[in-house]
Amino acid sequence: MESIKVFAPATVANVACGFDIFGLAVDNPGDEVIVTKRQDDQIVIQQITGDDGKLTFDIQKNTVTVPILKYLSHLDIKHGFDIILNKKMPLGSGLGSSSASSVAGVFAVNQLLNKPLNTEELLPFAMEGERIACGSAHADNVAPALLGGFVIIRSYSPLDFFKINTPADLYVSIVHPDVEVNTKDARHILKNEVSMNKTISQMGNVAGMVAGLISENYDLIGRSMVDYIIEPIRSILIPQFFEVQMAAKENGALGCSISGAGPSIFAFSRGKETAEKVGLAMQKEFTKVNIQSNLFVSSINQSGPKILD
Amino acid sequence: MESIKVFAPATVANVACGFDIFGLAVDNPGDEVIVTKRQDDQIVIQQITGDDGKLTFDIQKNTVTVPILKYLSHLDIKHGFDIILNKKMPLGSGLGSSSASSVAGVFAVNQLLNKPLNTEELLPFAMEGERIACGSAHADNVAPALLGGFVIIRSYSPLDFFKINTPADLYVSIVHPDVEVNTKDARHILKNEVSMNKTISQMGNVAGMVAGLISENYDLIGRSMVDYIIEPIRSILIPQFFEVQMAAKENGALGCSISGAGPSIFAFSRGKETAEKVGLAMQKEFTKVNIQSNLFVSSINQSGPKILD
Repeated sequence: MESIKVFAPATVANVACGFDIFGLAVDNPGDEVIVTKRQDDQIVIQQITGDDGKLTFDIQKNTVTVPILKYLSHLDIKHGFDIILNKKMPLGSGLGSSSASSVAGVFAVNQLLNKPLNTEELLPFAMEGERIACGSAHADNVAPALLGGFVIIRSYSPLDFFKINTPADLYVSIVHPDVEVNTKDARHILKNEVSMNKTISQMGNVAGMVAGLISENYDLIGRSMVDYIIEPIRSILIPQFFEVQMAAKENGALGCSISGAGPSIFAFSRGKETAEKVGLAMQKEFTKVNIQSNLFVSSINQSGPKILD
Repeated sequence: MESIKVFAPATVANVACGFDIFGLAVDNPGDEVIVTKRQDDQIVIQQITGDDGKLTFDIQKNTVTVPILKYLSHLDIKHGFDIILNKKMPLGSGLGSSSASSVAGVFAVNQLLNKPLNTEELLPFAMEGERIACGSAHADNVAPALLGGFVIIRSYSPLDFFKINTPADLYVSIVHPDVEVNTKDARHILKNEVSMNKTISQMGNVAGMVAGLISENYDLIGRSMVDYIIEPIRSILIPQFFEVQMAAKENGALGCSISGAGPSIFAFSRGKETAEKVGLAMQKEFTKVNIQSNLFVSSINQSGPKILD
């Protein structure tokens, strides 16, 4: 195989109560990366589309190529590749845009080299793309983009992560409003200390979310979708957040919170029909204050990156 | 039925990473309460054994009778009962001694009155015994003593709790050293603030513990038995804690931490034989510094209170 086109999915990190430890993949949107073998050992970004010219062609700084360079260096492989990145999702949206690119690129190269590593082993390299994009190597977007499904990062040191069951009828409505939130800012405004009471409440919801997902208890999932630590702070950066959240719940969502660092907002619903109704109701709240938005409705993506063509 | 004898089990609260939200019941030890109907409407504690004279006969302050009084008042029932409490477990041990008494008493009365409430509905009354014993109405001992099994308290306000699956071959070794720790002191030395990093690490372990128990993944259970928040502080009150913990792990325990507020220390093991070996190794560390201890080895009690005779 000389060339491969790979899709990697967008992801919702944090998932209400699980700051830095929960993430899930959706079917749509996502990024496409086309990787082609070269005769020399150069890594060259030939083309980037869909980014409005915002992304760099510098392979030491681009989120697609940094993981590939780390991967090749780790395996001591000298091989060149041409890269085309088709951004099919908004940048800085809280949907794991950089992770989708990182995962698609390193997954594609691993395929072209006949899989010297298995998929899970690609995680540390894909995380290096996250370090470039947001200043620290978080795994809560990268891991679900790579593995699909709902992923728990139990520990960062040593890295310990695993995928859990999710109910088949669980749907995600994601609304991405056309406002800008810088991921680095969204992290800097967080406090360094959490009250013991909030910590206990949050742990209760983390436990409830995990038990609810594995045992397919939709009510318990919904009751556990309360974030005492991050949402009260980050929601300040998102206009209409509480109106959108209320509209989601009033229209039948199990729960609703910020996707990653925002500004995207996600809701869980039981069934696609409810998820679509919820998404439209969320968009309507943004429209009221003249904010345009995109809506994505999806089940939980179980497969992670996908080879296209 | 005029009289009933009820056993309620000891419990391990917190279970390493789940401060105030996790608790589990064991088969042994536990408390026995004998309740007999009276002809009048008085509640009378006739006898208390096994407490070295430490417990009060004042029905407004005893952990058996306070829940019964709240229960009768709530249901507007005027009925008298004679109470005999046989303490079959150490007081102030971190094993939910007061909870076992509270649960046994209110469960017995509910039985004698032909079960006007179901078992779960008894929880708020049993929690009142905890308020008397340690100053606040925590549920992490009371709930597993009442329901059996491993219980998660997702939320205290509103009260939301549920039982999760545990692997059949999971055994608990509990070592109770003959040293005194006051539960109120053990709570007062805790800090009111937790660092964000510790909160995230703890949430990861909470998620890992729940997933590990439900999916019967013993390794994951073991890896999740790390407490970044409470154990580093409370362990100071327990002589030999780290030696005991290390001995447990070196002898095959999945993990080891403080039971409730201590001074009892518990370990999880896969299989009864390992749990017994682990327990003896833990005791040996106390013996080295001339501290006597009791050892209890048990599977997870799945049934809660039990009617005897």
